[in-house]
Amino acid sequence: MSNVKLAIIYYSSTGTNYKLAKWAEAAAQEAGAEVKVLKAEETAPQQAIAANPAWKEHYEETKDVPNVTLHDLEWADAYIFSTPTRYGSAPAQIRAFMDTTGGLWFNGKLVNKVVSAMSSAQNPHGGQEATILSLYTSMMHWGAIIAAPGYSDPVTFSSGGNPYGTSVTVDQDGNMLEDVEEAVKHQARRTIEIAQMVNNGTK
Amino acid sequence: MSNVKLAIIYYSSTGTNYKLAKWAEAAAQEAGAEVKVLKAEETAPQQAIAANPAWKEHYEETKDVPNVTLHDLEWADAYIFSTPTRYGSAPAQIRAFMDTTGGLWFNGKLVNKVVSAMSSAQNPHGGQEATILSLYTSMMHWGAIIAAPGYSDPVTFSSGGNPYGTSVTVDQDGNMLEDVEEAVKHQARRTIEIAQMVNNGTK
Amino acid sequence: MSNVKLAIIYYSSTGTNYKLAKWAEAAAQEAGAEVKVLKAEETAPQQAIAANPAWKEHYEETKDVPNVTLHDLEWADAYIFSTPTRYGSAPAQIRAFMDTTGGLWFNGKLVNKVVSAMSSAQNPHGGQEATILSLYTSMMHWGAIIAAPGYSDPVTFSSGGNPYGTSVTVDQDGNMLEDVEEAVKHQARRTIEIAQMVNNGTK
Amino acid sequence: MSNVKLAIIYYSSTGTNYKLAKWAEAAAQEAGAEVKVLKAEETAPQQAIAANPAWKEHYEETKDVPNVTLHDLEWADAYIFSTPTRYGSAPAQIRAFMDTTGGLWFNGKLVNKVVSAMSSAQNPHGGQEATILSLYTSMMHWGAIIAAPGYSDPVTFSSGGNPYGTSVTVDQDGNMLEDVEEAVKHQARRTIEIAQMVNNGTK
Repeated sequence: MSNVKLAIIYYSSTGTNYKLAKWAEAAAQEAGAEVKVLKAEETAPQQAIAANPAWKEHYEETKDVPNVTLHDLEWADAYIFSTPTRYGSAPAQIRAFMDTTGGLWFNGKLVNKVVSAMSSAQNPHGGQEATILSLYTSMMHWGAIIAAPGYSDPVTFSSGGNPYGTSVTVDQDGNMLEDVEEAVKHQARRTIEIAQMVNNGTK
Repeated sequence: MSNVKLAIIYYSSTGTNYKLAKWAEAAAQEAGAEVKVLKAEETAPQQAIAANPAWKEHYEETKDVPNVTLHDLEWADAYIFSTPTRYGSAPAQIRAFMDTTGGLWFNGKLVNKVVSAMSSAQNPHGGQEATILSLYTSMMHWGAIIAAPGYSDPVTFSSGGNPYGTSVTVDQDGNMLEDVEEAVKHQARRTIEIAQMVNNGTK
Repeated sequence: MSNVKLAIIYYSSTGTNYKLAKWAEAAAQEAGAEVKVLKAEETAPQQAIAANPAWKEHYEETKDVPNVTLHDLEWADAYIFSTPTRYGSAPAQIRAFMDTTGGLWFNGKLVNKVVSAMSSAQNPHGGQEATILSLYTSMMHWGAIIAAPGYSDPVTFSSGGNPYGTSVTVDQDGNMLEDVEEAVKHQARRTIEIAQMVNNGTK
Repeated sequence: MSNVKLAIIYYSSTGTNYKLAKWAEAAAQEAGAEVKVLKAEETAPQQAIAANPAWKEHYEETKDVPNVTLHDLEWADAYIFSTPTRYGSAPAQIRAFMDTTGGLWFNGKLVNKVVSAMSSAQNPHGGQEATILSLYTSMMHWGAIIAAPGYSDPVTFSSGGNPYGTSVTVDQDGNMLEDVEEAVKHQARRTIEIAQMVNNGTK
């Protein structure tokens, strides 16, 4: 496992998906991938952020995480998206970035990118499945190769059992209710493993 | 058919969904509903708009159409969403507005709103179905009542046959490839008809 | 709440969805609805059933529950489907029944039926959301009115928080891991409440 | 392109998806894959088949096409599913087969199978997208790798533009309304190309 380039693209208002992204980064680096952790640009008005102390704090803490660019999408062989749910879909911050990819899409630059996704919600069945599935639907338009974890490792069972991608429930205080660290790491390894196969086959 | 308040909420860069919205408005007014046609606020950078003459022109033409507000969602008994597809999902403009509804949602203000949706895409199977279904998934979080047209009228068959909501294919020059005006009007009438029933039952 | 006719249509191999169906029945009867609990006909080979003691036992126990028929679909004003997941979709037993509804569909006999759905799975995120959403997609073809519970009552939060419909996780021994009885009952009441409104409006 | 084993698994009542399957077979053989065309076992009652002359005729014509078995799923590196829609989902014949895969699933035998899907419907937007997406959702449970065509070749644009998989509209007389032969062939080649990469990487 050597030459895979992985972009971990997340949106996080209060830190959960940033944590998921960092776990994925650790596993991917250990597996020898080149990794970038990138955030979807914040598009919410400053006053909305300022009104929510946890959001404000996380916003300040992650100011130095680079915003994802189209160049990153072209650079990477594989993407892992990590995002909270907004009514069973990704937040507008993620969608706004995806909406800018028309040029790459039109020129076939996103074909055969290997992708997987993770999500969080405040309720155990609060849209975690739907959010991940909606991202995959979009990425199929790109010609991406969807590498959902399924039950490819027993860790899926012990971490909530979401076959579409690792997901976690977060309580009002921001605590994760399932222990998903190992599931995230498995998903990261699997994503780059499949990207490695595709790289070997196409380069 | 009298006291239904209908919000037709659309996003349109070059005019297709604005046209669908206006057809829906005409039918709804004729059926006696109080109707507002409202656009999702444009969130794209001005330079992106300026770079696309058709987008720029439509943007200028519809400057006076009010942006949808949370107050409109509370006011209306029924919503019809009309939106182009962005990779099988609604554009960020629509999602950004939906992401602001947390307060209404939390206070149960969106429960029993009667909803339906319409979509457009450049390819006949380019995400029309997926886009509408993704909106319904989100609206289920609100506790909305989904009134997809199904095949409740023969017009669905002659206008492309999308049971989830009226959808249309638009070519590179902005021409609609199916004749959907009557299907839009049927959908509008059906949406307010069901909203009328709900109004009578709850007021 | 008086004249609503409700068909609770379930499939159950080892009893979970039968239990959900019976809770729904109790609440619906208390609310004054006429209720039928009906099972999707078993289509699995007898040897498969015989090889699984829990399945065999439940199969024998529920021999007297009538199989759902097309006549029941026509009779009822509202349906509640309750079904385990099979890879994020309803089992073939449910789909086989739905596949027989072409005649009713073609003649518009399923238009404006008010529907909601429930599901179970062995993993907390094991397809509960996807299974319910796939049923709603199908019922939109019928012209049904989808009355997902959303968060229309606080009980949704305390029972797993699935806005699409009540869902439950079942362990290897058949125990339900969430307490969903009250959520099922709320969903049943809500389904018939909306069916009542539709009845009043159309009859 | 040599050692890929491809199972083309279809259901067809009157011949459309059989034709799609045969086009896929031709392209896959030309690309050097070992190919089996396999049908989902017919589960409809004989009287239903007998009552529909076109169904009866196709049923007799394809009597010698082997029914797909669990062994075939294990044998193949890649699967292409081809199926009509039944209300935005695959028919019970397909689902019944999928429901028998629990043993393979539990033992991880379906992990990393490369899959894609095709569909048909009588209306241009009559569930083609939803049907394919619902199959992918299920296959994610298997740990399969989803290789939807996206717009990886211009032929997608000229054949209806369904990025999730090739789909076709069939009129009352069984005529296909779009020319999808080349799109089917592209999808077959792409599916085995990606399976080749995975084979090389894992064997």
